[in-house]
Amino acid sequence: MPTVAMIEEKDAEGVVRDVYDDIKRTRGIDFVPNFWKTIAHHPATLMRLWAEVKAVMAPGALDQRTKEMIAVAVSATNGCEYCVLSHTAAARKLGLSDEMLGELLAVVGLFNKTNKLVEGYRVEVDEAYKG
Amino acid sequence: MPTVAMIEEKDAEGVVRDVYDDIKRTRGIDFVPNFWKTIAHHPATLMRLWAEVKAVMAPGALDQRTKEMIAVAVSATNGCEYCVLSHTAAARKLGLSDEMLGELLAVVGLFNKTNKLVEGYRVEVDEAYKG
Amino acid sequence: MPTVAMIEEKDAEGVVRDVYDDIKRTRGIDFVPNFWKTIAHHPATLMRLWAEVKAVMAPGALDQRTKEMIAVAVSATNGCEYCVLSHTAAARKLGLSDEMLGELLAVVGLFNKTNKLVEGYRVEVDEAYKG
Amino acid sequence: MPTVAMIEEKDAEGVVRDVYDDIKRTRGIDFVPNFWKTIAHHPATLMRLWAEVKAVMAPGALDQRTKEMIAVAVSATNGCEYCVLSHTAAARKLGLSDEMLGELLAVVGLFNKTNKLVEGYRVEVDEAYKG
Amino acid sequence: MPTVAMIEEKDAEGVVRDVYDDIKRTRGIDFVPNFWKTIAHHPATLMRLWAEVKAVMAPGALDQRTKEMIAVAVSATNGCEYCVLSHTAAARKLGLSDEMLGELLAVVGLFNKTNKLVEGYRVEVDEAYKG
Amino acid sequence: MPTVAMIEEKDAEGVVRDVYDDIKRTRGIDFVPNFWKTIAHHPATLMRLWAEVKAVMAPGALDQRTKEMIAVAVSATNGCEYCVLSHTAAARKLGLSDEMLGELLAVVGLFNKTNKLVEGYRVEVDEAYKG
Repeated sequence: MPTVAMIEEKDAEGVVRDVYDDIKRTRGIDFVPNFWKTIAHHPATLMRLWAEVKAVMAPGALDQRTKEMIAVAVSATNGCEYCVLSHTAAARKLGLSDEMLGELLAVVGLFNKTNKLVEGYRVEVDEAYKG
Repeated sequence: MPTVAMIEEKDAEGVVRDVYDDIKRTRGIDFVPNFWKTIAHHPATLMRLWAEVKAVMAPGALDQRTKEMIAVAVSATNGCEYCVLSHTAAARKLGLSDEMLGELLAVVGLFNKTNKLVEGYRVEVDEAYKG
Repeated sequence: MPTVAMIEEKDAEGVVRDVYDDIKRTRGIDFVPNFWKTIAHHPATLMRLWAEVKAVMAPGALDQRTKEMIAVAVSATNGCEYCVLSHTAAARKLGLSDEMLGELLAVVGLFNKTNKLVEGYRVEVDEAYKG
Repeated sequence: MPTVAMIEEKDAEGVVRDVYDDIKRTRGIDFVPNFWKTIAHHPATLMRLWAEVKAVMAPGALDQRTKEMIAVAVSATNGCEYCVLSHTAAARKLGLSDEMLGELLAVVGLFNKTNKLVEGYRVEVDEAYKG
Repeated sequence: MPTVAMIEEKDAEGVVRDVYDDIKRTRGIDFVPNFWKTIAHHPATLMRLWAEVKAVMAPGALDQRTKEMIAVAVSATNGCEYCVLSHTAAARKLGLSDEMLGELLAVVGLFNKTNKLVEGYRVEVDEAYKG
Repeated sequence: MPTVAMIEEKDAEGVVRDVYDDIKRTRGIDFVPNFWKTIAHHPATLMRLWAEVKAVMAPGALDQRTKEMIAVAVSATNGCEYCVLSHTAAARKLGLSDEMLGELLAVVGLFNKTNKLVEGYRVEVDEAYKG
């Protein structure tokens, strides 16, 4: 179904093998998700992207669960099925409750609505927001 | 510039007046943002939307700053100028630092990229994510 | 500001001239909107697009005002400023009242919200909707 | 498949039960669509959203079929499968013919194209549209 | 599953028959893709769209493979499954290699990210880009 | 206007200074675009993103002009003003003619239309495209 052949774990060599091992270790999972097995057909993208994900998703000024919630918000807004499912699963592992998910999506829904009201009415930017 | 005439504060009466007063009191601001003055031309929308914003943005399982950060993430993904400016301002008032904003947008950027890689390769959903 | 030079009315010749005249006559306006003057740099696009607009926007099973309202709904959802302004102006000429615009955008806002709730929860399609 | 458990009709109690009954009565259907059974996990969202849908979709300055057509236009533009299927089904019940659907989607397609031409060329807003 | 009945090849008559034959001949395929069989329910759209596709996709200042790659980029950005699959297949027939696809999607992913960083930070347009 | 303070060239130090110099040298320009001066407030993002841009945009299986055209296609589809202007300028420097731009945007417009027709009709994927 993907438009390139996935590189299965048993066939992974060299840098692809290294990234696969690091993904499983870092995430604490015993399989390599299809996303990474698909991207692996272009090793330069695989390496660069995994390095970016590790750096951006590491706890910093924001904690990891907040970052995964933001990933869910972006993915829901974009309507990306795989992305919503995988990031919701990741957020769940980090403690996202049903109640938190309910509030998260209520916020996502609300601002997708207000965004379009703003666009539809062509609301003018207030002086106070021009900084 | 908006496609309907805004109802200015001095002209607000009845339920519009009540909502305007509640917005200023609840938000701790001394002006009514253009968004609300524009929506006010359709009072049913004004009332329903303000009630929804108050309920959805109240602290609950998620705190208010997290909710405003999600609003920024949605608004950036949708490319809505007014929305980004107003929600960033609101998050700043709730303590969002430059460092936090930097991490927030790095996450938003990253997952807008991966969302499109998923769509472009048509990555298959893993069994583990099918629940 | 546009990324190609517009062809002004005084410089229009041949098919561009003909399309310009037809736009003004068909729309009952005394100027050629910037959209068409910009597209005109690629005459093949100008001609094909104007023919399509005339055919698609002609009254048929749906009336013209309904078609312009749908154009506003699409443009608000896409966040296209020029498009919202020009189609709202066109709908106004066809009788769109403030009350109708208020209802139109309330519908647009509502379904942009529910669309994202559907994506965020990954709602399953009911058997009844599978046709 | 959804990221929360649906509340089935046989398990619905209290306000969820009431909303389910009202949905079936108002829509004239004998089942509760999956959308509502999924949203029901967060009763505050269920109640608020159903109240909004009832109010916004009631006949007013625009009739119900026009409102459902706008819902289809928004859902097609957003690429939301569930939303397109459910709103097309609703519009069909209100008399949408194949010919009307053909015109509706021709309009949706056309303006998604022109929206992107406007963005791609950065067309300048005409003075006449600045209001 | 589509919201209208497809017109199968054996049932095609008149202009629909002509377009079907032209699609197969022009594309060098022995079947009519579902897209065209679905659109065919509204013959005016079928005819106009096929004429546009033939004209726009013909080799000109840009070659056909580049045009199909742009179609993949647009379709990935919009998250349209059918569109990604069909245009990737078309580009493959025109010589798109795995390496080229890898670079194409790396570019698509990168600029979907930077687009959202621009929107999220509200980057100001440089004088040099104002033309 | 941006939501963080830009780091001007005269104030750039350390890694920010190095990246600024590399941008000007690599691009053959005598100023640092606002995008980079804005991103610079979060040096980790600046460094990672510039490295990615250099790697992804280097000539490979696809040439640089084709890559910039894809950037324009993505940016037009997303409706990002800054992005359209800066990538069109970059493509122009690499030889993009008005005729090529006209064809590029005709393709972008066409497939934004067909993408939405596919979504609006819920066209089924052909067996031939399932790979």
